[in-house]
Amino acid sequence: MELRGRATIRDVAERSGVSTTTVSHVLNEVPGKRISEQTRVRVTQAAADLHYRPNKLAQGLRTQRTGLIGFLSDHVSTTPFAGRMILGAQDAAAEAASLLVLLNSGGDPEVEEREVEALLERQVDGIVYAAFYHRVVTPPQGLRRGPAVLLDARGVDGEFSSVIPDEVGGSRAGVEQLLAAGHRRIGFVNNQDDIPARTLRLAGYRQALEVYGVPFDHSLMVEREPSARGGFDGAMALLSGIEMPTALFCATDRMAMGAYQAAQELSLSIPRDLSIVGFDDQELVADSLRPGLTTVALPHYQMGQWAVRQLLEQIDAPESQPTHALIPCPVVRRESVGPPSRAVRGLGGEPQPA
Amino acid sequence: MELRGRATIRDVAERSGVSTTTVSHVLNEVPGKRISEQTRVRVTQAAADLHYRPNKLAQGLRTQRTGLIGFLSDHVSTTPFAGRMILGAQDAAAEAASLLVLLNSGGDPEVEEREVEALLERQVDGIVYAAFYHRVVTPPQGLRRGPAVLLDARGVDGEFSSVIPDEVGGSRAGVEQLLAAGHRRIGFVNNQDDIPARTLRLAGYRQALEVYGVPFDHSLMVEREPSARGGFDGAMALLSGIEMPTALFCATDRMAMGAYQAAQELSLSIPRDLSIVGFDDQELVADSLRPGLTTVALPHYQMGQWAVRQLLEQIDAPESQPTHALIPCPVVRRESVGPPSRAVRGLGGEPQPA
Repeated sequence: MELRGRATIRDVAERSGVSTTTVSHVLNEVPGKRISEQTRVRVTQAAADLHYRPNKLAQGLRTQRTGLIGFLSDHVSTTPFAGRMILGAQDAAAEAASLLVLLNSGGDPEVEEREVEALLERQVDGIVYAAFYHRVVTPPQGLRRGPAVLLDARGVDGEFSSVIPDEVGGSRAGVEQLLAAGHRRIGFVNNQDDIPARTLRLAGYRQALEVYGVPFDHSLMVEREPSARGGFDGAMALLSGIEMPTALFCATDRMAMGAYQAAQELSLSIPRDLSIVGFDDQELVADSLRPGLTTVALPHYQMGQWAVRQLLEQIDAPESQPTHALIPCPVVRRESVGPPSRAVRGLGGEPQPA
Repeated sequence: MELRGRATIRDVAERSGVSTTTVSHVLNEVPGKRISEQTRVRVTQAAADLHYRPNKLAQGLRTQRTGLIGFLSDHVSTTPFAGRMILGAQDAAAEAASLLVLLNSGGDPEVEEREVEALLERQVDGIVYAAFYHRVVTPPQGLRRGPAVLLDARGVDGEFSSVIPDEVGGSRAGVEQLLAAGHRRIGFVNNQDDIPARTLRLAGYRQALEVYGVPFDHSLMVEREPSARGGFDGAMALLSGIEMPTALFCATDRMAMGAYQAAQELSLSIPRDLSIVGFDDQELVADSLRPGLTTVALPHYQMGQWAVRQLLEQIDAPESQPTHALIPCPVVRRESVGPPSRAVRGLGGEPQPA
């Protein structure tokens, strides 16, 4: 920033009557330099009077650290989660007095390589490479040239440290909400997209059933696009079957919103006639539905924080081995889960008490 | 970034058989230096072979520009709009080969002053000060020390350039959707919070009525908290009156979501029995409702872009006067607006054709 009348180290030296070297030693707290307490106070006071700020840019050249962390993401704008992920990363950076430098590639691999270059030119201390939904990625080549961590993504070969949500554990905990309430015929409206969440959330659903000794029934699962529309269609398909499920587990909150609309269409009251659990905890949706949606939260803030903390550790210890973290996805209880309805229960066989 | 085996200017000089000064002149395209085409090609080739990147940090010290733009925000995570605002800012920064350095204050004025300091220490070329909803702000003192632009905010005294959404124009256009469809009894579920949007969206509502010669009726307006719950309560109040409105204009999409729930409660079909228009275009909500919500979009991407472009202009011309921009809020048409219902119309008097 071109400052109006910015004070230089020379001004501080003049005002305190010492050399610029002494000023530098005092203000940078250089160890092993004998400087009297009196001089120290005089210099500090002069610096404060003049609003003097040391030039971090010049400091960066000396220490080989800039305190800048590159944050390179693909589709920053396509999810409302971006903010929380960035905030977690910012807060962790702030703990180390570092700043995030943000770049967005729009997902284009060529652009990504150029952006990694741009960050390296700025001498960032390391790079967080962030996906805005859990993905398996081929990171840009340039990331190999220094400390880097993958956020909400894992690399094809495990070369980089990475952090992803525990989709299986979250999904299992979500379905267990329904099992514990007494449901045994639990429909699963899954996401049809070929992404890790699809198979991992299914794995969690199956694990939960297994714990409760409920056999997996293929006719209780449908796959649709991850939108309210897809959730509506999927729920209608399951709820129109002969043996209607008493509860639905939906792979995303938007799909759960569609399931609410299907329940409305069929005059089913939630949770009296139908219980619903979602996934994501998209606050705008989950909290706004009527009744509030019980769902599983994606830990975006925690993942952002973990990624930067891990990166800072790697900056301090560049030869350390990559670490891979799974962050828990906690259940957020609202009002969409109740016991199975008697009317419907008759169709699906006697449920065992939880 | 501590690079493994990073090439220096000395390596390039050695490989191309010229001095480091010549390498610097060639790679920085210093004007007025006579260098043969042959040398130029040799140096450029050597730099490419060695993956040499000039040290932008050192360049920054020479040119007094770092190509870094500070982006200081208050509550980055509380709205799903953050992503689009940041993306617009990033894209505009990229046009000028600049990068955003992100900082989040959580809205604490003391933290803000410190963060402005941190950005100034990093020698950013200028600062965007972003609010995540349209607010009147007292910017940090530190902003006065260099180029700065307020984003989604205006300052109390107009000292800084600023960009905000055209709330009045957007609101007017939204209400005109209903008037043009033939509605004359249009309820307004306004936000009760003391923020600019409240008075400005009301002004737009009144302007639209005036254009169509419809007198403002105070009994058609309620104010509630800007949530689905608030929208539900407000809509229930208006729809339970003696002269029920045929349409509702809701100050936010979440409130409109609550109005949908009220319509469901009262067995009113949208848009057959009741038309609804929202504000914000929160894609997750507006697009997921059934039927899709006609609403007014907040131009977050465009505002982010404008702020950085304006900042870049001010960096080039520090003595220029502050500029204040209003960015249009376009109507997004979906399926929630239709002609007034005959059954209800009888109560509210004969509508005039549009």
